[in-house]
Amino acid sequence: MSRGIITVLSGFAGTGKGTVVRELLKRHSEYALSVSATTRSPREGEQEGVSYFFKTKKEFEEMIRNDQLLEYAQYVDNYYGTPLAYVNEQLEAGKNVLLEIEIQGALQIKEKYPETVLVFLTPPSLEELERRLTGRGTETPEIIRERLKRAAEESRGMEKYDYILVNDDLDTCVEQFHHIIETVRCEASRNSDRITQIQKSLAEKYGN
Amino acid sequence: MSRGIITVLSGFAGTGKGTVVRELLKRHSEYALSVSATTRSPREGEQEGVSYFFKTKKEFEEMIRNDQLLEYAQYVDNYYGTPLAYVNEQLEAGKNVLLEIEIQGALQIKEKYPETVLVFLTPPSLEELERRLTGRGTETPEIIRERLKRAAEESRGMEKYDYILVNDDLDTCVEQFHHIIETVRCEASRNSDRITQIQKSLAEKYGN
Repeated sequence: MSRGIITVLSGFAGTGKGTVVRELLKRHSEYALSVSATTRSPREGEQEGVSYFFKTKKEFEEMIRNDQLLEYAQYVDNYYGTPLAYVNEQLEAGKNVLLEIEIQGALQIKEKYPETVLVFLTPPSLEELERRLTGRGTETPEIIRERLKRAAEESRGMEKYDYILVNDDLDTCVEQFHHIIETVRCEASRNSDRITQIQKSLAEKYGN
Repeated sequence: MSRGIITVLSGFAGTGKGTVVRELLKRHSEYALSVSATTRSPREGEQEGVSYFFKTKKEFEEMIRNDQLLEYAQYVDNYYGTPLAYVNEQLEAGKNVLLEIEIQGALQIKEKYPETVLVFLTPPSLEELERRLTGRGTETPEIIRERLKRAAEESRGMEKYDYILVNDDLDTCVEQFHHIIETVRCEASRNSDRITQIQKSLAEKYGN
């Protein structure tokens, strides 16, 4: 079984990252969702090892020191990060591991593991993003404006991603995501073993 | 309409390049096959502009001088090459242009047009390649051996391609080829306009 691929999905609030990830996991068994570690307290219904790995500040800082995190960040007073061990287990089992994280984390991972695939999910247009955020009807205009201001900041790093995935139709978007990962698996640089093997066997038997 | 992508398909004799190309053209209207120019004489049934663009040696050498070829090569006494004008017409019409050429030509094009996608078609194993070449029953053992010697030479450049496509099951292979091209269209580097546009509109309306 060949090792899976680490895949980061980022995108503005309201572009449907969660839905795309859920659909992908439902349709294709070769994906697994990464579980983050955090120092914040569990909320009602959150399960250890499913929602998060809950850690004390001391435990988390030890993970940082021991290089046991793929990436991490601090928000307000809490740490959030991606434990390496869980990701590696999944990759070894042949699963492509999905990480739903933001640009800083995405770029940290890409630097450490250049084979990581970074996908940025984008709405077809700004108007559509505004419409989706407003259409939820659950947030105040101030919160919506905050999210769009945040989107303006986040958009600055879009060109650092490998792929831009437009979420217009959900079904098309989920399949395109899957096709990206399948295509990445065909990259010559990820098939050195196969290439070497065919070159060697041809050379031995039919080479000059 | 967005401009199409130049796609080169190479691979050993017996890996089914022709069949893959035919199936792709049949199933997906966004592909067009490039037509080569040659100085060799038309064979029975060959049509000008369909099988080849037939040129005199003088005409062909003028095309070389005027940089009107994407790539060209000389075999025995004849020139073979890919006229730029036809390819450009198809690209402008939004078609992805397929070129079934060998590694020297493929690398010539990639150097001039780095946005070209190079796909190398390979059998699942050497045994399978031998089986397919023998199974045709139309060639002598000497010719089969010549083809395999040629494959040994051609295999040396495999790692210079962008993608390695295994032709195990034809249907899977044709769809994977199509997915490669769809995925390439999602590359951030090919979506600068879309990225700039969303960054600009977000910044203007919600930026600091």
